[in-house]
Amino acid sequence: MDLFNDFDITAIVGPVVSNGLKIILLIVAFMIASPIGKKVIKLSIERAGKHHQVNKGRTRTLEKLLINAFSYTLIFLFIAMLLGIFEIEIGPLLAGAGILGLAIGFGAQGLVSDVVTGFFLLLEKQIDVDDYVTTGGFEGIVEEVGLRTTKIRSFDGTLNFIPNRNISGVSNHSRGNMRALVDIGISYEENMDEAMKVLQNVCDEFASDERMKEGPDVLGVQQMGSSDVVLRIIGFTENMEQWAVERDLRKRLKEALDTAGIEIPYPHQVNITK
Amino acid sequence: MDLFNDFDITAIVGPVVSNGLKIILLIVAFMIASPIGKKVIKLSIERAGKHHQVNKGRTRTLEKLLINAFSYTLIFLFIAMLLGIFEIEIGPLLAGAGILGLAIGFGAQGLVSDVVTGFFLLLEKQIDVDDYVTTGGFEGIVEEVGLRTTKIRSFDGTLNFIPNRNISGVSNHSRGNMRALVDIGISYEENMDEAMKVLQNVCDEFASDERMKEGPDVLGVQQMGSSDVVLRIIGFTENMEQWAVERDLRKRLKEALDTAGIEIPYPHQVNITK
Amino acid sequence: MDLFNDFDITAIVGPVVSNGLKIILLIVAFMIASPIGKKVIKLSIERAGKHHQVNKGRTRTLEKLLINAFSYTLIFLFIAMLLGIFEIEIGPLLAGAGILGLAIGFGAQGLVSDVVTGFFLLLEKQIDVDDYVTTGGFEGIVEEVGLRTTKIRSFDGTLNFIPNRNISGVSNHSRGNMRALVDIGISYEENMDEAMKVLQNVCDEFASDERMKEGPDVLGVQQMGSSDVVLRIIGFTENMEQWAVERDLRKRLKEALDTAGIEIPYPHQVNITK
Amino acid sequence: MDLFNDFDITAIVGPVVSNGLKIILLIVAFMIASPIGKKVIKLSIERAGKHHQVNKGRTRTLEKLLINAFSYTLIFLFIAMLLGIFEIEIGPLLAGAGILGLAIGFGAQGLVSDVVTGFFLLLEKQIDVDDYVTTGGFEGIVEEVGLRTTKIRSFDGTLNFIPNRNISGVSNHSRGNMRALVDIGISYEENMDEAMKVLQNVCDEFASDERMKEGPDVLGVQQMGSSDVVLRIIGFTENMEQWAVERDLRKRLKEALDTAGIEIPYPHQVNITK
Amino acid sequence: MDLFNDFDITAIVGPVVSNGLKIILLIVAFMIASPIGKKVIKLSIERAGKHHQVNKGRTRTLEKLLINAFSYTLIFLFIAMLLGIFEIEIGPLLAGAGILGLAIGFGAQGLVSDVVTGFFLLLEKQIDVDDYVTTGGFEGIVEEVGLRTTKIRSFDGTLNFIPNRNISGVSNHSRGNMRALVDIGISYEENMDEAMKVLQNVCDEFASDERMKEGPDVLGVQQMGSSDVVLRIIGFTENMEQWAVERDLRKRLKEALDTAGIEIPYPHQVNITK
Amino acid sequence: MDLFNDFDITAIVGPVVSNGLKIILLIVAFMIASPIGKKVIKLSIERAGKHHQVNKGRTRTLEKLLINAFSYTLIFLFIAMLLGIFEIEIGPLLAGAGILGLAIGFGAQGLVSDVVTGFFLLLEKQIDVDDYVTTGGFEGIVEEVGLRTTKIRSFDGTLNFIPNRNISGVSNHSRGNMRALVDIGISYEENMDEAMKVLQNVCDEFASDERMKEGPDVLGVQQMGSSDVVLRIIGFTENMEQWAVERDLRKRLKEALDTAGIEIPYPHQVNITK
Amino acid sequence: MDLFNDFDITAIVGPVVSNGLKIILLIVAFMIASPIGKKVIKLSIERAGKHHQVNKGRTRTLEKLLINAFSYTLIFLFIAMLLGIFEIEIGPLLAGAGILGLAIGFGAQGLVSDVVTGFFLLLEKQIDVDDYVTTGGFEGIVEEVGLRTTKIRSFDGTLNFIPNRNISGVSNHSRGNMRALVDIGISYEENMDEAMKVLQNVCDEFASDERMKEGPDVLGVQQMGSSDVVLRIIGFTENMEQWAVERDLRKRLKEALDTAGIEIPYPHQVNITK
Repeated sequence: MDLFNDFDITAIVGPVVSNGLKIILLIVAFMIASPIGKKVIKLSIERAGKHHQVNKGRTRTLEKLLINAFSYTLIFLFIAMLLGIFEIEIGPLLAGAGILGLAIGFGAQGLVSDVVTGFFLLLEKQIDVDDYVTTGGFEGIVEEVGLRTTKIRSFDGTLNFIPNRNISGVSNHSRGNMRALVDIGISYEENMDEAMKVLQNVCDEFASDERMKEGPDVLGVQQMGSSDVVLRIIGFTENMEQWAVERDLRKRLKEALDTAGIEIPYPHQVNITK
Repeated sequence: MDLFNDFDITAIVGPVVSNGLKIILLIVAFMIASPIGKKVIKLSIERAGKHHQVNKGRTRTLEKLLINAFSYTLIFLFIAMLLGIFEIEIGPLLAGAGILGLAIGFGAQGLVSDVVTGFFLLLEKQIDVDDYVTTGGFEGIVEEVGLRTTKIRSFDGTLNFIPNRNISGVSNHSRGNMRALVDIGISYEENMDEAMKVLQNVCDEFASDERMKEGPDVLGVQQMGSSDVVLRIIGFTENMEQWAVERDLRKRLKEALDTAGIEIPYPHQVNITK
Repeated sequence: MDLFNDFDITAIVGPVVSNGLKIILLIVAFMIASPIGKKVIKLSIERAGKHHQVNKGRTRTLEKLLINAFSYTLIFLFIAMLLGIFEIEIGPLLAGAGILGLAIGFGAQGLVSDVVTGFFLLLEKQIDVDDYVTTGGFEGIVEEVGLRTTKIRSFDGTLNFIPNRNISGVSNHSRGNMRALVDIGISYEENMDEAMKVLQNVCDEFASDERMKEGPDVLGVQQMGSSDVVLRIIGFTENMEQWAVERDLRKRLKEALDTAGIEIPYPHQVNITK
Repeated sequence: MDLFNDFDITAIVGPVVSNGLKIILLIVAFMIASPIGKKVIKLSIERAGKHHQVNKGRTRTLEKLLINAFSYTLIFLFIAMLLGIFEIEIGPLLAGAGILGLAIGFGAQGLVSDVVTGFFLLLEKQIDVDDYVTTGGFEGIVEEVGLRTTKIRSFDGTLNFIPNRNISGVSNHSRGNMRALVDIGISYEENMDEAMKVLQNVCDEFASDERMKEGPDVLGVQQMGSSDVVLRIIGFTENMEQWAVERDLRKRLKEALDTAGIEIPYPHQVNITK
Repeated sequence: MDLFNDFDITAIVGPVVSNGLKIILLIVAFMIASPIGKKVIKLSIERAGKHHQVNKGRTRTLEKLLINAFSYTLIFLFIAMLLGIFEIEIGPLLAGAGILGLAIGFGAQGLVSDVVTGFFLLLEKQIDVDDYVTTGGFEGIVEEVGLRTTKIRSFDGTLNFIPNRNISGVSNHSRGNMRALVDIGISYEENMDEAMKVLQNVCDEFASDERMKEGPDVLGVQQMGSSDVVLRIIGFTENMEQWAVERDLRKRLKEALDTAGIEIPYPHQVNITK
Repeated sequence: MDLFNDFDITAIVGPVVSNGLKIILLIVAFMIASPIGKKVIKLSIERAGKHHQVNKGRTRTLEKLLINAFSYTLIFLFIAMLLGIFEIEIGPLLAGAGILGLAIGFGAQGLVSDVVTGFFLLLEKQIDVDDYVTTGGFEGIVEEVGLRTTKIRSFDGTLNFIPNRNISGVSNHSRGNMRALVDIGISYEENMDEAMKVLQNVCDEFASDERMKEGPDVLGVQQMGSSDVVLRIIGFTENMEQWAVERDLRKRLKEALDTAGIEIPYPHQVNITK
Repeated sequence: MDLFNDFDITAIVGPVVSNGLKIILLIVAFMIASPIGKKVIKLSIERAGKHHQVNKGRTRTLEKLLINAFSYTLIFLFIAMLLGIFEIEIGPLLAGAGILGLAIGFGAQGLVSDVVTGFFLLLEKQIDVDDYVTTGGFEGIVEEVGLRTTKIRSFDGTLNFIPNRNISGVSNHSRGNMRALVDIGISYEENMDEAMKVLQNVCDEFASDERMKEGPDVLGVQQMGSSDVVLRIIGFTENMEQWAVERDLRKRLKEALDTAGIEIPYPHQVNITK
């Protein structure tokens, strides 16, 4: 018996053969995974692009971005597994990547949150383009609902970009008839019944306005104000017509009270010139 | 003895046989798990859909979504286990998936929170459709209580979408009689007893109103105001009738005081024209 | 020696026997754990239900819920352990469950927090049904203290549902005599000693009121106000009688000052009609 | 040689013997740990109870609670270790317990936080019973400092329960002499030196009051107010006497100014009756 | 047979050979990784520098910083792996590094968040240099959009540095025509129709101003103010011209009302000299 | 050959010997670690106590506390390692301790945060005893800077206990000369140059006051107020003398304006008695 | 064959030799790591000290602190690894250290956050000593930018210490010309064109002031105020001269209006003496 025979060749050869097989298997696996992954990314983005009518430039940017990230990840995994086959501890490597990954994961968390919220905004139809909404501290007309950000045009012309994650709770003002509400004060000395009759007359005429969905009506004495008895008038109008209706109603109610000689007791001021 | 014999064939063959068995077992397991999982998803959604009267379109969307996610997860697991059998380190793979999973987990956390809260909203009957509630910063009539979002219609016509997780604490205004409260001020110079008698008379008449559940009553001197002595009147009405009752009561109390010649000392203003 | 003999049958048979034993042990363990677990759940809920007087319907719902969850968990564990015996890597499986579990764990965290708080609310007797409390942003009479939610009826009739986790710090207004406090202003020109004597006389008479626990007393000059010298009167009353006492006291103090001819200098206003 | 001999009995017997030893060791360990643990819990609670004068009922409740929790934990550990000896993967079991444990751990975190804070409140003598403190948004007299909650009685009679974790920063008003501060305004037209002399005279007389620790003194012109020149008087009094001193001082200062004919120019109002 | 022979030399030699191979492999791996990593860092920064027009000095600083960090990490990994080959437990080492890494990871998290947000700010073109924006609590003209910070020049001359992570939601005022809005009040006694005609005449003339994109128009009675009836005029102007237009419009509307003899009832004051 | 011989005694004896050695090593390790640890704790606390002049009673309490905690931890570790030597899975035990540890860790986190902040407060000399500071929502004179809490005496006599962790940002008012600022208003009708000359004269005289570090000077017209033109005077004084200087300056400036016959136009009020 | 021979001496001797080698390697590693680590710490601090001009005392304190921490860590690692070589489970030890480490890690997190922010404050030159900045709720002149804290001197003389982590967003008022803005109101009755001409004349004269960078100009009618028509004047001045310029401009504009006889309609008050 020589040393070599006792050295037990199989302890060396066996692993070599088995490792060879593993490496080949690994390479094959990655050669299959790489193009499939890229294809999946491409198709997903294309389909998503079509579905949400995203413009071409952006989808291409996103595609390039994701394929880049995917490639780097594959390379990292390949090296890590290769080292793993040779039984070199890759724990440290992974730990290093872990810290980075943690940091990136937290960053990505925001994006995931954006996308998840965006997805449900669309699925549950909470928001449509051209809706008038209040959400995330902004108010205006929706210009675009994206996967990451929603664009809302304020009435003063400002374009607001809101990350979807900030949208928790949406007030959509474009989902039905809107209320028109006018509060009008009369003097404490006036007869309330008479005033309410005058106002109701205006309301009855106004009810025939085509913008009205539910006639304006005098509700009654809403408040004993600091200098006037406040009467409230309420009606429902076509969507987005509420402000115009309120303005018109306000003007006609005042004219009717003036005509009837009922005082609107705004807090006048003493005006004596020096 | 030749090398081959010493090579100990079993070290190669044994694992091959055992691995073969494992792979077959694995494939069988997945072939059983796949259709069962899909079936379970389908049935769960169908039942949930029936129970909560969700419309068909949405359940189908959700179904497709979940089955997709399930399939991808199965495929990922199958590959990972296959590699595991060949003893290729899948730690890195898992780490990669872990970071993604973490990000998705955090995203999903919000959904779980929505669903859990939604579930208890329904189980504990905190909210019913058509209730008038204040919750999550919104106030109005409940239009729909979903698993993820609750829809509340504000009185001005706005439709509010509230993720259930935002609902912590519900004020339900539709669970019993509501209070009608009127504060009315009289002049510091007036006799308080007399004024309270006049007001109580109105209250006693008003108590026969069918909307009243617990007669309005004069409580007494609530406050020594800046220009008046404030008297408080309280009663309980049928649900949702409180505002109308308050308006009517306010009007009749003022008329009674006017008739009795008791001054309501609102801060008049000096009006001298230029 | 033939190959088979060298193949060392024990390498195959041994594990088979040992695995068989493990599987049997596993099945036995689960057959014991399953009914015991279900029994424990049932009894726990029944006892909890009796202890906190929860109505039957709800306990049954909860029971069904928990037993369902328990069964699914057992099945998951059984499959996982079975695979473990055959040495199939179940790490991936667990990772998948881990992400889900994490999400559910976070959701459950809220419930645990509710139950723990609820438990201490009851143990430390911070809240009883019919107490008048302020907590979690709500104020009113406690209608029910549950394990998950507490119901508080506001004075305006609203029923508020508060998740127990939101209750951090309870102001209980039903644990002893309550203070009645009246601030009354006299003119800067009046004699303070005389006014205080008049007010103290009223207080002395009032002290015999059976609702008073600690006679009302004039404390002295609380503030040099913008138009009056403010005198403070304080007393302690039976619980929940404080508001009525304050109202009565306020009325009688004003009447006494009027009788004594001491001016209450509210900021009068110039009233000149046009 | 028969198959059985080759089967190598030791591969079976060895583990059996070794496992048997392990099991016995395990049972012994638990039989020792169980009564010791229970004893430790009992004694700890008893001692804690004595130290903080907790009443008997509550300590017994707590004891039963903790011993229950301890027993369940022991049983869980015993089963887990037993399975571990038979090399059945208990990872899944642990994972399940981990999720529950996580949830409970988070719940317990609040309690730990309560106890730690409570411990330091007592150790550092930040709060004593009968102290007048402001903390955690509440103000009043301390009635009890517990390990989990502190009870504070507001001046209006309300009893507040504050979880110790909410107590971050304590304002203790019972740790030394308190300041009495009176601001008094004189007319812009008055002589400031004269007014300050009058006020200082009152202060000098007042300094002999036994409640005063550091005589009241006129500091000077604190502010050019909207209608008056504000003079500030400051002194230090015995603890809890500050309010009474301020009220007395205020009265005597006003009387002195009235006597000296110095105007306190409060914003009078035009009073013309209709 | 001597002891040495039985000692089985291969148990020592085998590992030595295999470890030698591992070490060589490791050194080669690091010798490849080091220059590649440095190259990648250099190129990435150069490209990023060019793309975002960052000045040279800063890129060089960043480059040096990153290469330093990279080198230290490599050295740490090399030592860790070397120890790993000699089977010395490096767990403790890693744990030490882990705590540090955790701390650094949390620190880095903020940077990642900055960079991710900055990246999307640029990709989605939410912000351009010279835009007038409101974001993160600051308002002004954008001077620079960096990867970590954005610089905004306030209108008062202040330069604000905002970490990108603070930018959640951008209001961009430079993305379209802006609204010019003028509210003008007329006396309650004036004829509203006449006043609106006068104002509309001014608007019609003003519409020809080249800065106007959508003619100013009188909307109607916006509010019944405390001393005036408020009429609202709205128009849209070229971007950034809105303030100048509002100022001009305001002046011309007032002049027109003055000419027409319509009163603007500002709250005059009584002016009687002493 | 009998069964026993084949049983291979070494498989039992070897571990026994090796385990025996391990146990002895373990016991020795703990017998060394225990007294050293206690000594370290004692010395550390003694030295810390001396360095920060903590009184004896407290250090002894802390010492006893820490040594207790240390002993319990050692015992726990010893048992855990002993079980580990016998290869009994201690994972479950650790998991149990982990949950507890997590809870305690979170609790301890606050203490660590307190100590770290306290350490830097002292190291960076942000706060000294007797400094006048504003921090953590409290304002007053520092009475003690501890490792866990800082005590601040408010000017009204209250003693505030602030956990150091709440101290983020310190405003120290005792680190240099302080500004004295007086705003004084003159009538719109007065000559501004003349008034500023009068005021500057007072300032020039005042500059010789020994409390002044940088003479008071008239800056100019600070504001066009609602009823006066506001002039601002600024100077720098010795620390803590700023309020006295402001009061004196205010008085002398008013007297000078009175002498020069320049009106201070406070908003007088109409005083017509009924 | 005796038992001893069968006992296989190598099973004992082999490990002893291998462990001996490991221990020697370990000791060598630590003997190299210790002085290198200390040297690195010393040099790093020295260099950092020079770079940021930190005074000697502080660097030495920091050095001692870090070397202490480093030594303790080394000792801990050495012991842990030694035990590791003897295959004594050090998991429990690590777990213990882990809980402590976690607590310390969280504490350290704040420091890391401070240092990272401080580093970028300096790198990006957001803040320089002597800059006038607003950040973290404080406003004043920067006195020192440290790695952990930034010192800002308020204008009233207070020295503020701000942990760098609290600095998120810096408003630097020392980076360019500053705006001087004066709003001046004229009576509703005055001719606006004439008034603007008068004001523009003053501005044109003022433009020659050397402190002005961009001449003051009359912008137009900024607002229809409650009692005046507000005209706005804007200019840009040298840094830090904006307040002096505003004061001078304000005075000269008022004088010009007075000269031209244009009324500034401040809300006069009725002054009728009693």
